[in-house]
Amino acid sequence: MTNIKGIAASSGIAIAKAYQLVTPELSYEKISIDHPDKEIERFENALEISKQELEKIKAHTQKVLGDEHAEIFSAHLLVLGDPELINPIKDKITNENTMAEAALEETANMFISMFENMDNEYMRERAADIRDVTKRILAHLLNVNFPNPALIDEEVIVIASDLTPSDTAQLNRQYVKGFATDIGGRTSHSAIMARSLEIPAVVGTKDITQAVQNDDMIVIDGIEGNVVVNPSEEELASYREKQDNFAKQQEIWAQLKDEPTFTADGEQVELVGNIGTPEDVTGVINNGGEGVGLYRTEFLYMGKSELPTEEEQYEAYKSVLEQMGDKPVVVRTLDVGGDKELPYLDLPKEMNPFLGFRAIRFCLENERVFRPQLRALLRASVYGNLKIMFPMIATLEEFRQAKDILLDEKESLKKEGIKVSDDIEVGIMVEIPSTAVIAKQFAKEVDFFSIGTNDLIQYTMAADRMNEEVSYLYQPYHPAILNLVNNVIEAAHSEGKWAGMCGEMAGDPIAIPILLGLGLDEFSMSATSILPARTQIKELSKEKIASNKKKILSLGTAEEVVDFVKGKIE
Amino acid sequence: MTNIKGIAASSGIAIAKAYQLVTPELSYEKISIDHPDKEIERFENALEISKQELEKIKAHTQKVLGDEHAEIFSAHLLVLGDPELINPIKDKITNENTMAEAALEETANMFISMFENMDNEYMRERAADIRDVTKRILAHLLNVNFPNPALIDEEVIVIASDLTPSDTAQLNRQYVKGFATDIGGRTSHSAIMARSLEIPAVVGTKDITQAVQNDDMIVIDGIEGNVVVNPSEEELASYREKQDNFAKQQEIWAQLKDEPTFTADGEQVELVGNIGTPEDVTGVINNGGEGVGLYRTEFLYMGKSELPTEEEQYEAYKSVLEQMGDKPVVVRTLDVGGDKELPYLDLPKEMNPFLGFRAIRFCLENERVFRPQLRALLRASVYGNLKIMFPMIATLEEFRQAKDILLDEKESLKKEGIKVSDDIEVGIMVEIPSTAVIAKQFAKEVDFFSIGTNDLIQYTMAADRMNEEVSYLYQPYHPAILNLVNNVIEAAHSEGKWAGMCGEMAGDPIAIPILLGLGLDEFSMSATSILPARTQIKELSKEKIASNKKKILSLGTAEEVVDFVKGKIE
Repeated sequence: MTNIKGIAASSGIAIAKAYQLVTPELSYEKISIDHPDKEIERFENALEISKQELEKIKAHTQKVLGDEHAEIFSAHLLVLGDPELINPIKDKITNENTMAEAALEETANMFISMFENMDNEYMRERAADIRDVTKRILAHLLNVNFPNPALIDEEVIVIASDLTPSDTAQLNRQYVKGFATDIGGRTSHSAIMARSLEIPAVVGTKDITQAVQNDDMIVIDGIEGNVVVNPSEEELASYREKQDNFAKQQEIWAQLKDEPTFTADGEQVELVGNIGTPEDVTGVINNGGEGVGLYRTEFLYMGKSELPTEEEQYEAYKSVLEQMGDKPVVVRTLDVGGDKELPYLDLPKEMNPFLGFRAIRFCLENERVFRPQLRALLRASVYGNLKIMFPMIATLEEFRQAKDILLDEKESLKKEGIKVSDDIEVGIMVEIPSTAVIAKQFAKEVDFFSIGTNDLIQYTMAADRMNEEVSYLYQPYHPAILNLVNNVIEAAHSEGKWAGMCGEMAGDPIAIPILLGLGLDEFSMSATSILPARTQIKELSKEKIASNKKKILSLGTAEEVVDFVKGKIE
Repeated sequence: MTNIKGIAASSGIAIAKAYQLVTPELSYEKISIDHPDKEIERFENALEISKQELEKIKAHTQKVLGDEHAEIFSAHLLVLGDPELINPIKDKITNENTMAEAALEETANMFISMFENMDNEYMRERAADIRDVTKRILAHLLNVNFPNPALIDEEVIVIASDLTPSDTAQLNRQYVKGFATDIGGRTSHSAIMARSLEIPAVVGTKDITQAVQNDDMIVIDGIEGNVVVNPSEEELASYREKQDNFAKQQEIWAQLKDEPTFTADGEQVELVGNIGTPEDVTGVINNGGEGVGLYRTEFLYMGKSELPTEEEQYEAYKSVLEQMGDKPVVVRTLDVGGDKELPYLDLPKEMNPFLGFRAIRFCLENERVFRPQLRALLRASVYGNLKIMFPMIATLEEFRQAKDILLDEKESLKKEGIKVSDDIEVGIMVEIPSTAVIAKQFAKEVDFFSIGTNDLIQYTMAADRMNEEVSYLYQPYHPAILNLVNNVIEAAHSEGKWAGMCGEMAGDPIAIPILLGLGLDEFSMSATSILPARTQIKELSKEKIASNKKKILSLGTAEEVVDFVKGKIE
């Protein structure tokens, strides 16, 4: 057996056979052919199998994860059926006696290189689609197994270098019991997806794909961040026990599902969930969420060839609001740029995208993108308890400008005779240090704050959280972060407003006691973290921690904070 | 006449003819030649002229700006004399009857593309050298005028798209009266160089190279940020008057050269200069600097093929310390990475270099680079009043680790019998928000703070100051910046330490009153800003501004700050 350490990305224990999700070797010797007709038949056959596969995957993805996740496969099917691509391949086989593999690859490569050289993100995405589809057809021509995670029909642990959004979109929760990857961290896309799918995951193992063979027995310990390859009988028994305990723990948690969240000394806080799509609401409700603290609207804009219409957006917002009833739903307006690109918007290439033209900065300059989203939100507002939140606010002017546009659209809608709620709170993400520092000035004008710790930490420490060389500086417990968080909470309370947190830190068992002591009102986290957090908070005395607040804020290092909290509070 | 707005980068008025510093068109029709011997002669002739030119430029640069600035021309001369490049060109002429232009360009391009494709920064720099030298020889083959700013021998205003460090290194202050560029901002390299050369400059005009012809009469107004092309007689007269007034103003300033800096109400502060090389010390002394507040040691490491030796560094530090006598010299240890690359160190390519592996982060991981610098500094310490400053400190652990290495080297030197000063203050740059927020914790351990506003502003606002799309967020007067600065100063004073500032903000006439009111002890700026600052401070009442401190810190926007300061203080 081998024991591989990684980063615990999604809690729980999973035990199953390995399924290596890696693209196979697709090489062949190019030979001349004698019977073009037979070759055409071979090619059409491979096309047909690919088409059936893609349709199955698309339907499955639509059912399990929703329309937006399935879009990429629609794009692939379009490529498969495009005569501009398919006819030249057939011509090449017929006229030049080229074998199907070479005819396919050479023709496709011509299109790929043509599209890639257009200085246009949208065309580059199309090039990627053609590349994906070509690999699939080629695999079928070569009778090589092409991994289709969506079509897995037995219990497996998926092993991959990294999982792309489209890979994760295909994972079937019924069969995929867990996954482990070479790269990624707790806040990487695949980690967030694992928590949203509620399957145990360990990421950032560095070399799991090297260490594991297909069908090896694998234990994923998503609690400790361990992967065990081919465990001994004893180990297996011990992990099964751990798995049972975790299940029992989950039952205990489940008892708190419909309860409000009180501390041991009777103080109430709100535990809410982060979502990306209307389909994610179920997870929040099933895990006892008291609302949605962060609805990331980017997914509506991703994997598409053009902007979503106001109508599409309206339907999505309405669906979330209706599902949540009178519980609060905080919707963050579009946060593109940085590491989130939208091909059809043709955003500028930047030297430091994390310090660049993104989120509200982009929206204020592109009202044709911003206004339809605000209209859709306003129209949907009558179906529930909507709160609107602007991301990446660095100055009061930006907030005022964004709010003015919102009020302007509200006015327009009313003139058009369309009903709009008059109780929409309008707040901001606090994820830029400037805003955290002068939170007091902001608190006079906003209705609420939600602290986005993922970005706040990276800017406050001047360290890209995706950059391994400086990842040691991504320190949620650094006293500067705690002081900024405290400043935001105090500012909110001094003006009778509320302060929440929607970064990863809000669900972190070490951070929770501190945040409680600082007076945080709302904790927004992955759905699966809600019940463990409620269980933890039930045992904590807010007053006792608050009495140590001054001491905690005056500590010098993250390590001292953790030591102090562990000693004093637990 | 045409009036072009830009950014005032270096103060003063300059009037002279335009000198367009742009690479000429170097095209030719490729023809076969009949007399290879003559062609070889032509080639050798062009080589020889280029060599003489480069030697002249190198000698001149060495004299005016020092050895480091001249390094690039040594590299060019090496290329010129390299038989590995020159012989294949001659062979091509002789064996293939190729004309010299084509033989040169084709052979050079082969090397350039070979070197560029090596995944190695050092080799890519060599490719750039070959490209530069090839252009020069080609220009001489084509009898085209190749701009050599170093060889200018009449009074001119240099007009360029941008000025690279090697361009600026060549400018002769005797003849180059000013310059104007299309791109750049107040903190860009060319702007900083202009202030260090003490010539008026306007940058970021967007299209000056389009609007100006060689020999056009140009007025550079580096006070207002204006460029006037072909002014009328009246305008010219008015600018000559402005120029005279500025000269008179400079005489008034000069009277304060040897005076200490006192406010109107008798409070003393320290005005010191930023330098990049030992040669810059003269400028600081001539402009009445009371010390060096920031010695950027990067220039010692730049334009080289390997690390500077401990000995080279020792000589440079000793020279600066000796020149400054008992006045303080704050030396910042190596700040590479970000936008400052050192080819021979092969730093990783990063997605967000400004949030990456740079400065102290790099040095702590690369003691083979860090320790020789510390040893050189310690050895030089006996020649003056040395203070050592670590850049990009984000955590107390980093400072402790850096200081431990310093003390370790001190110990070693003493054991070797080498004298080291026992009065070296050890401080940090405050340029990362985390450090500004918990300055109080740092103040217990450091001897001083120097606030680096260029970086502090960009991290606090999460906006890359080089990115035009978000440059509106580079706001020195944003209340968050002022609150952080105040926090640092208060923390220093509460522990009996001093706080300085070495970013551009320290020399900014709008910021100076505010900083004075917040209690800043030391202002470090471009040498030419020192006397104007001293003149300004003489008229200001520190107490009066300090009485408005609470109000200033509670303002909401940068605009409100500027309005308030202009209304209340001036």
